[in-house]
Amino acid sequence: MARLIRNTRQRAVSRAPARHLVVCQHDGRFDSTVEVAAISDLIQQKDQIVWVDLQNPRAEDLALLSDEFGFHPLAIEDATHPHERPKIDAYNGYYFLLFYALRYDAAQKRISSQQVSLFIGANYLVCIHQDPIAAIDETIRRWQRYEHDFGEDVAELLYHLLDTIVDEYFPILDALIERVEDVEAQIFDHFRPESLQEIFALKRELLLMRKIVASERDVLNVLIRREAPVYPRDMVAYFQDVYDHLIRITDSIDTYRDLLSSALDAFLSLQSNQLNEVVKTLTIASIILMSAALIAGVYGMNFEFMPELSWPWGYPFALGLMAAISLLLIAIFKRRGWL
Amino acid sequence: MARLIRNTRQRAVSRAPARHLVVCQHDGRFDSTVEVAAISDLIQQKDQIVWVDLQNPRAEDLALLSDEFGFHPLAIEDATHPHERPKIDAYNGYYFLLFYALRYDAAQKRISSQQVSLFIGANYLVCIHQDPIAAIDETIRRWQRYEHDFGEDVAELLYHLLDTIVDEYFPILDALIERVEDVEAQIFDHFRPESLQEIFALKRELLLMRKIVASERDVLNVLIRREAPVYPRDMVAYFQDVYDHLIRITDSIDTYRDLLSSALDAFLSLQSNQLNEVVKTLTIASIILMSAALIAGVYGMNFEFMPELSWPWGYPFALGLMAAISLLLIAIFKRRGWL
Amino acid sequence: MARLIRNTRQRAVSRAPARHLVVCQHDGRFDSTVEVAAISDLIQQKDQIVWVDLQNPRAEDLALLSDEFGFHPLAIEDATHPHERPKIDAYNGYYFLLFYALRYDAAQKRISSQQVSLFIGANYLVCIHQDPIAAIDETIRRWQRYEHDFGEDVAELLYHLLDTIVDEYFPILDALIERVEDVEAQIFDHFRPESLQEIFALKRELLLMRKIVASERDVLNVLIRREAPVYPRDMVAYFQDVYDHLIRITDSIDTYRDLLSSALDAFLSLQSNQLNEVVKTLTIASIILMSAALIAGVYGMNFEFMPELSWPWGYPFALGLMAAISLLLIAIFKRRGWL
Amino acid sequence: MARLIRNTRQRAVSRAPARHLVVCQHDGRFDSTVEVAAISDLIQQKDQIVWVDLQNPRAEDLALLSDEFGFHPLAIEDATHPHERPKIDAYNGYYFLLFYALRYDAAQKRISSQQVSLFIGANYLVCIHQDPIAAIDETIRRWQRYEHDFGEDVAELLYHLLDTIVDEYFPILDALIERVEDVEAQIFDHFRPESLQEIFALKRELLLMRKIVASERDVLNVLIRREAPVYPRDMVAYFQDVYDHLIRITDSIDTYRDLLSSALDAFLSLQSNQLNEVVKTLTIASIILMSAALIAGVYGMNFEFMPELSWPWGYPFALGLMAAISLLLIAIFKRRGWL
Amino acid sequence: MARLIRNTRQRAVSRAPARHLVVCQHDGRFDSTVEVAAISDLIQQKDQIVWVDLQNPRAEDLALLSDEFGFHPLAIEDATHPHERPKIDAYNGYYFLLFYALRYDAAQKRISSQQVSLFIGANYLVCIHQDPIAAIDETIRRWQRYEHDFGEDVAELLYHLLDTIVDEYFPILDALIERVEDVEAQIFDHFRPESLQEIFALKRELLLMRKIVASERDVLNVLIRREAPVYPRDMVAYFQDVYDHLIRITDSIDTYRDLLSSALDAFLSLQSNQLNEVVKTLTIASIILMSAALIAGVYGMNFEFMPELSWPWGYPFALGLMAAISLLLIAIFKRRGWL
Ligand SMILES: [Mg+2]
Ligand SMILES: [Mg+2]
Ligand SMILES: [Mg+2]
Ligand SMILES: [Mg+2]
Ligand SMILES: [Mg+2]
Ligand SMILES: [Mg+2]
Ligand SMILES: [Mg+2]
Ligand SMILES: [Mg+2]
Ligand SMILES: [Mg+2]
Ligand SMILES: [Mg+2]
Ligand SMILES: [Mg+2]
Ligand SMILES: [Mg+2]
Ligand SMILES: [Mg+2]
Ligand SMILES: [Mg+2]
Ligand SMILES: [Mg+2]
Ligand SMILES: [Mg+2]
Ligand SMILES: [Mg+2]
Ligand SMILES: [Mg+2]
Ligand SMILES: [Mg+2]
Ligand SMILES: [Mg+2]
Ligand SMILES: [Mg+2]
Ligand SMILES: [Mg+2]
Ligand SMILES: [Mg+2]
Ligand SMILES: [Mg+2]
Ligand SMILES: [Mg+2]
Ligand SMILES: [Mg+2]
Ligand SMILES: [Mg+2]
Ligand SMILES: [Mg+2]
Ligand SMILES: [Mg+2]
Ligand SMILES: [Mg+2]
Ligand SMILES: [Mg+2]
Repeated sequence: MARLIRNTRQRAVSRAPARHLVVCQHDGRFDSTVEVAAISDLIQQKDQIVWVDLQNPRAEDLALLSDEFGFHPLAIEDATHPHERPKIDAYNGYYFLLFYALRYDAAQKRISSQQVSLFIGANYLVCIHQDPIAAIDETIRRWQRYEHDFGEDVAELLYHLLDTIVDEYFPILDALIERVEDVEAQIFDHFRPESLQEIFALKRELLLMRKIVASERDVLNVLIRREAPVYPRDMVAYFQDVYDHLIRITDSIDTYRDLLSSALDAFLSLQSNQLNEVVKTLTIASIILMSAALIAGVYGMNFEFMPELSWPWGYPFALGLMAAISLLLIAIFKRRGWL
Repeated sequence: MARLIRNTRQRAVSRAPARHLVVCQHDGRFDSTVEVAAISDLIQQKDQIVWVDLQNPRAEDLALLSDEFGFHPLAIEDATHPHERPKIDAYNGYYFLLFYALRYDAAQKRISSQQVSLFIGANYLVCIHQDPIAAIDETIRRWQRYEHDFGEDVAELLYHLLDTIVDEYFPILDALIERVEDVEAQIFDHFRPESLQEIFALKRELLLMRKIVASERDVLNVLIRREAPVYPRDMVAYFQDVYDHLIRITDSIDTYRDLLSSALDAFLSLQSNQLNEVVKTLTIASIILMSAALIAGVYGMNFEFMPELSWPWGYPFALGLMAAISLLLIAIFKRRGWL
Repeated sequence: MARLIRNTRQRAVSRAPARHLVVCQHDGRFDSTVEVAAISDLIQQKDQIVWVDLQNPRAEDLALLSDEFGFHPLAIEDATHPHERPKIDAYNGYYFLLFYALRYDAAQKRISSQQVSLFIGANYLVCIHQDPIAAIDETIRRWQRYEHDFGEDVAELLYHLLDTIVDEYFPILDALIERVEDVEAQIFDHFRPESLQEIFALKRELLLMRKIVASERDVLNVLIRREAPVYPRDMVAYFQDVYDHLIRITDSIDTYRDLLSSALDAFLSLQSNQLNEVVKTLTIASIILMSAALIAGVYGMNFEFMPELSWPWGYPFALGLMAAISLLLIAIFKRRGWL
Repeated sequence: MARLIRNTRQRAVSRAPARHLVVCQHDGRFDSTVEVAAISDLIQQKDQIVWVDLQNPRAEDLALLSDEFGFHPLAIEDATHPHERPKIDAYNGYYFLLFYALRYDAAQKRISSQQVSLFIGANYLVCIHQDPIAAIDETIRRWQRYEHDFGEDVAELLYHLLDTIVDEYFPILDALIERVEDVEAQIFDHFRPESLQEIFALKRELLLMRKIVASERDVLNVLIRREAPVYPRDMVAYFQDVYDHLIRITDSIDTYRDLLSSALDAFLSLQSNQLNEVVKTLTIASIILMSAALIAGVYGMNFEFMPELSWPWGYPFALGLMAAISLLLIAIFKRRGWL
Repeated sequence: MARLIRNTRQRAVSRAPARHLVVCQHDGRFDSTVEVAAISDLIQQKDQIVWVDLQNPRAEDLALLSDEFGFHPLAIEDATHPHERPKIDAYNGYYFLLFYALRYDAAQKRISSQQVSLFIGANYLVCIHQDPIAAIDETIRRWQRYEHDFGEDVAELLYHLLDTIVDEYFPILDALIERVEDVEAQIFDHFRPESLQEIFALKRELLLMRKIVASERDVLNVLIRREAPVYPRDMVAYFQDVYDHLIRITDSIDTYRDLLSSALDAFLSLQSNQLNEVVKTLTIASIILMSAALIAGVYGMNFEFMPELSWPWGYPFALGLMAAISLLLIAIFKRRGWL
């Protein structure tokens, strides 16, 4: 990932405001006024579900991660260091999961990505991110409104969050696909250098998006198949569904990258063929014109003794000679299949 | 898949009529007048086989899926949401399988695809699709006519349905192959820009078809090898046969994509070689003509003191000079291997 | 495979004559006059070895397969349907194996392929094919002549048949390699458009041959490693040897496909470099000639007041000017490294 | 690796001074004045930790490896022979690990690499290298200063050393990425041949760096997953973190190699399109000029009988004819879509 | 491999002399005068080590292989048939291993390869080859001189033989690398068609060498990891070392093949860019010259009534017109960015 996603960070000169939010659910009742210091006690109670969301966290917010939750220093480093890859690491008693929310800037025609770090425990979920993430706010809102859809289960919270993040990829992919199809149509219509820059930009965006989505697909695969489950068995179908979405996205990206390459190849072939035709025409026309001009040049010479010059039919003879040579050359080029 | 198959859906502005059909078999007798509400009872009886076909289902038809069969909401979503990938998911007591029927529009020269969603239980089969699917109608008709060929087994119904769908791929593949071979022949004969657009269109169609067929091949592979069997052991050979067909199709597609690329490369090389020859000819002819024209130009100058002009053999001398220089240049070009 | 091998079938308008041959061995004695209806009894006797060869079988010959041997309908379909892929399927009590004999038509410079279908039982071998297959006739002849080399074992018959088929691939491969090396030599010598068509044809033939051989390699791999053995353990080395041959062939094909691509690339680079040189020469020569011609044109103008025209040294001055400008241009082009 | 990294060795004509350093830790106290001959006794005491660092070792230093530690001759050969690949080998009682420190020469714009060979025992670490390695000196310094961070564990020493080495890769990667982005920007702006050489140089550097990092990634993978652990279980997360870093680096390299290729392709397409436009313009302008010049040439002929010459409007007629033909040609070229 | 290595065999018109050598070791004493017929007895004695070397063996030498050792006929065939691939096969009581010694003909600049076939038993080693193999002679010499380095173990003999063969690959690889770096330097300096043929030749040699070395790497891998060991456990490190060497060689070859391709691409881009510049210059210069020449042509026309011709400033006016048009055209081309 590294610097590919640097643009996002650079534009965000004015950093998002720091915010921390703790939501606690118990028997369907929600409490958003939890004392930070009380978290370590709350998460001891297995029937409590605690969601902690830290946006653009300050040093004192991060202290919470080791003090109240006791997270591993390397996991905290990954959560706060920008430009990690999507991944899932199993720690003792919790998972660390790193995902990306994507946003599409229609004006700039660029995808930007926001890193979302998650600590997933048996009864808590901790999110860390820099910029505001719509998917987090929406998932928390829906959790509080339709709490019985969510059950009393962190895995369902996780599913709804990941699903919301991934659902937002589709309109972005569609915007890119629209651009690919536009540029494809343009290329067969009339080529403009800007199309070429657009193809290059699209390749870049599709490459960036594919890198992120493919890594996230691997994360979901681990969640479904390999590791010890952090969730009840009937949740597999849900994570499988998110995994399906990610596969469809990488598949589509691959297809459209192929189509882009193939459209470019087609254009280049067409262009090279056109060049061929133009060069042939140039050859034929210039050779004919030069031949005629040579005859004119010959009869423009100032020798004293040039019998043709005083022929009464000299001028028509010269013009006729030009026409005859032109026709002869055309016949030769036709025979060679150049016309 | 995503938008690649959008064309189908777009053309189908006038949606197909909603239809629901329930066929029930018991001891070789068929009953097509089953009450919808009775399905849940019927499928409790292990000696009944129930086939439910829902075309362009309305909300109340879909209610049936959860009310009578109790299918998982995510499977129902996949069945009704367009543009999923071919796949098979194991649920508790049934499989969800997603396949595509293909149709070839000879006028438009495009493949269109129709999603077919199947729920496969021990004694029932539920199909969901938007447009009418010939393979489904034909399989139901053959089931009712030659019931003893089918046994009393959902797996045989499934086999006959998938086999019929896949058998319809071969004429489509043959139509594409015919076009590849036509365009190959054209390319070595005389190049036309339309051939290039045809190559591009063929690459697109082959790519689309390959994506679908390759995913379906994976589905069949799961059906044969990996998962707990939903069918008696002697059915493996039948699904293996469908799997064979899908492998042969992807193999053929790969071969013809290779041939297409290689034909295009061959053409481009040929063309580049031709351009080379044309440019060489241009060089030689224009240099010769320019040299002769220069001599004519020189003797067309109006200087008072130009001794050659008054030579009696001045004119033939000038023409001879032109011829001599031309022959000299031809000799030089021959030595350089340009002629 | 599909249509790639269609050419064979098309040429074979006059189908080969139907033939069926049953050879039975018992204690080293051969009997070629076996009644068809007796086969099912014969194969019950474990010390009998029966080889049935069906060429271009009629309906009644095929009936034999289900009536006397009880083969699975899908296996019979594969055996008689053209254009299957090489494969091996395990059925209850026998294997179905599909292989291809290759023939090289030196005049047409094309490989043609003949499908050979084999049913391999504990003490019988059934071959089905359309055209006469030299390898089958030769193996049967050698079996009857040197029977003690073969032991009393179907696996040895199978080995000798497959080995004979594969041994015939080597001269075909050598013929193709010869052509690759010829075209390689030509390309560096003097390019002709026919070389390009030859390269394309060779790529096609190598691609076809590779497809068949690679699938057969997989078949042998199954025979050696994966499935329950139909043969005594000491036969592994023999099938391993056939497998080695098939690997060597695919390796050689890959190498020569690489060399072909690389020769083509080399040629195209050479050609593009030559074009460059020609264009440079054109530039330089035409600019020089045009400059001199411009001077001639200027002094060919008919103005009344052109002082140079009446200079006694006007003519040599003009020629000198042309020479000076030519030398200046040559110096400039040399400085630019274009000469 | 072989000669790719030869440059480093060649520049190092003046070899680094030989140095050997033995640091021994026991209960948090450090002792740097250990007798070499005492090492074999020290490492018998399980509560001692011994770090031996050999820079540009002489024969007598190497004797130490077999005499005091009893290392395998092949491992010693690998440790002292230049240009090995990063790898880890398990020996009886110790591991042999080979890694590379990288340095970036900003002036030469080249990466150089220094081989670091490590012998990892239960309570000792032996480093062998030619040039001074900053990461080693820094790790030893930090070990002695913050000894309680390191515990009494060789695995932690190893982690800190590898982590320091790998952390130094990031600024090097960033320098290369900066250059890729500069050359990308240049290419769309105005092409210069130096950009092409820069692209080639960057491909080379990225290729070299990828080779080394990818091999090291495999080494870390072995350390984490496959082999019997030389370290307590809670160290896995630490080596996993180094592994993560190496994956991120190879991922970034792959991305930037893709972008480089794609930028080059884009440039070449743009250039080929430009050439097309230039050639078209040449065709049109030269054909028009040649046509007009032919008319001028015709009326420059010296025939006695050319009626137009004495027309009062002859001169304007000739100029009008030139204009008319020019406009006609422009119309024709417009119709052909060449303008 | 097949015909790729044909050159070696062809040059060796005069076959190497037949030679057979039997060396027997017992308790550190060597005996080179063993009777052939005694071998079968000797190898029964487990404390004897027998090395049989057959160069260009005659029929009676080969008889020894089946009579005295009882080797499998297929292994004997592989040992004596040229152009097999490097491989290892396990037989009952011995291994059959096939390797290649390489030689570099510096004059012809070609690699040639000699097949070495080995039968490896518990206490014997049989080598079969056509041409003299330096590595074999050297290994036997060193065995007899430094016998205590070798122990009483066939595996050590095998290791020393393979190691010697593989050590000889490095100078060959270095010679190829030298050539790659030379051609790289040339290509950026000044292109010559011979460089292109050199690139093609190098690709061929690297491809050939890679094919052989990669197969041998697989052989070593089998020797280390998969099969039942023919050697005591502490020999693994030795074969691992040979394996390391082979990996380093394939890695280097891959790198230099990449560099070769990338150098060629760079050159072609540079060349295409140069062509572009030349064509632009041609366009501009020829359009300017043609425009000026047209004016000269116009004032060279012979009309009676051309007012400019009698203007006193007519001549300078015409020259000024030429200059003005030239400057105008230069301004236009500058605006278009073509200058
Ligand atoms: Mg980390
Ligand atoms: Mg979703
Ligand atoms: Mg959703
Ligand atoms: Mg890209
Ligand atoms: Mg889905
Ligand atoms: Mg494509
Ligand atoms: Mg879904
Ligand atoms: Mg079928
Ligand atoms: Mg069918
Ligand atoms: Mg497509
Ligand atoms: Mg079949
Ligand atoms: Mg089939
Ligand atoms: Mg293919
Ligand atoms: Mg190419
Ligand atoms: Mg054979
Ligand atoms: Mg044979
Ligand atoms: Mg091909
Ligand atoms: Mg190659
Ligand atoms: Mg070594
Ligand atoms: Mg680090
Ligand atoms: Mg660090
Ligand atoms: Mg990390
Ligand atoms: Mg990439
Ligand atoms: Mg390309
Ligand atoms: Mg063999
Ligand atoms: Mg072989
Ligand atoms: Mg060695
Ligand atoms: Mg050695
Ligand atoms: Mg080669
Ligand atoms: Mg090594
Ligand atoms: Mg490179």
